[in-house]
Amino acid sequence: MALRFSITMSLDGYMAGPNPSRDEPLGKGGEDLHQWAFQASAWQEEHGGSGGTEGVDSQVVRANLEGIGAYLMGRNMFGGGIPGGGEGEWDESWRGWWGENPPYHVPVFVLTHHPRESLEMEGGTVFHFVDASPHEALDLARQAAGDLDVRIGGGPATVRDFLVADLVDFLHVVQVPILLGRGVRLWDGLEGIEERFAVETVSSPSGVAHVTFTRR
Amino acid sequence: MALRFSITMSLDGYMAGPNPSRDEPLGKGGEDLHQWAFQASAWQEEHGGSGGTEGVDSQVVRANLEGIGAYLMGRNMFGGGIPGGGEGEWDESWRGWWGENPPYHVPVFVLTHHPRESLEMEGGTVFHFVDASPHEALDLARQAAGDLDVRIGGGPATVRDFLVADLVDFLHVVQVPILLGRGVRLWDGLEGIEERFAVETVSSPSGVAHVTFTRR
Repeated sequence: MALRFSITMSLDGYMAGPNPSRDEPLGKGGEDLHQWAFQASAWQEEHGGSGGTEGVDSQVVRANLEGIGAYLMGRNMFGGGIPGGGEGEWDESWRGWWGENPPYHVPVFVLTHHPRESLEMEGGTVFHFVDASPHEALDLARQAAGDLDVRIGGGPATVRDFLVADLVDFLHVVQVPILLGRGVRLWDGLEGIEERFAVETVSSPSGVAHVTFTRR
Repeated sequence: MALRFSITMSLDGYMAGPNPSRDEPLGKGGEDLHQWAFQASAWQEEHGGSGGTEGVDSQVVRANLEGIGAYLMGRNMFGGGIPGGGEGEWDESWRGWWGENPPYHVPVFVLTHHPRESLEMEGGTVFHFVDASPHEALDLARQAAGDLDVRIGGGPATVRDFLVADLVDFLHVVQVPILLGRGVRLWDGLEGIEERFAVETVSSPSGVAHVTFTRR
C-alpha cells in the first residue's frame, strides 16, 4: 500500500534533457540517462530482449517493477510535446508513447484537467484520466491497487506535487554521472525533505549511484 | 603535476547554502554538507582532533590532502561575504577564514583583480594574490608546486573557470543526499564535460557517493 517512485537524474539534477519531442521524448541527451537500465538483464527481460548484466542495477530494476498494483502519472508524461497530447483539449487519437501494449499492465491514473474516456490497452494497462488533487488521485489508485503498492510513473512536476504533499513512502533516485546542462529539474523547492526519510546510497559498477529514501 | 580538486555538493547540486556570512561561511545549511568529512578520522587528525571512522570517507580525505604542492583559490572563497574581503578594494586586516595557521601549509594563489602583498602565515601557508587568467595562474602554481600536484581550493566560480578552460586532470565530487533547495551551484554550463573523463562512483556507509573524474 506504499506510494513509491523511481527516477533517474543527471549529476546536475536533470530528469530529462531540453526540448522533448516525438522523436526524443526524454529531450536532448535524455536517453543517455537510462543507459544504466538498458544494460540490466531485468530491463531487457521486461522489454522482450535478452542478455544484460545481473548486478545491483538489474536487481533494482526488478524491485521497481514488482508489487505494483496501480500507477499515477502526470499528463505531461502521457503526452508532453505532442499537439493535443500534453496540454489543452485532447487529440483523442493520442494513446500514449508506448504503443498498444504499454509496460504497465495495471491501471494507470493520468492526472489532467481535461478528463476523457478510459483507454483499455493490451496486456492489462488501462489509462484512466482524472481531474483530482494528489490526495484524491492516490485514493483512487490505492483502491485499484488492492494490497499492492502504487507507483508514480512521472513526470517531474507530478513527482514534486506528491513529495510536497508528503504522500511518498519510498523514493529511489538513480544518480548518473553525466551533465546535461539544461532540462527538467525535480528538486527545486524541496529543501529538507530528506529529514523525513532514512537515506541509503549504493554505487554500481555502471557508475550510477542508487539513493533510496524510506519514510521514517 | 596534475591539477585536481575535490568538492562536496548536495543532491540538488549546491556547493554551499544561500546567504554566506561571517558566522556561516558556507551559507545556510552549508555545514551539513560536510558532516561526512567531520566524521572521518583523517579529517580529525588534520584538524587536531581524534577519533572518527577509518573507512572509504577517511581514505578519500587523506588522498585529497596528500601530494599537494600549491593551491589555487578564488577571491570569493578567501573572503566572500566579508566587507573588504570578497570584492572591491581589500580591507587588509582580512587574512582569510582560517586563523593564523591555515590548513594549506603550501603556497596558495588567490585569483583577484585587486592584487595585494603576499601574506605569510604560520605552518607554511603563504597567500599570493594574483590578477591572472586560469592558464597563467596554473603556471604560477605549478612552478611553486614542483613535482607535486596543484589543487583548486574553491569556490564554485573558480572551479568552473578551470573546468571550462579544460585544465583539470582529476576531480572528486562528494554527492551528499540532502537537499539545500537554494545556494551556489557548480554545474551550470558544463554539459558534456564527463566525456573528457573516466568516471567512477563509490558509495560510503555515511550515505555519500564519491564520484571521481580522471582525465582520459
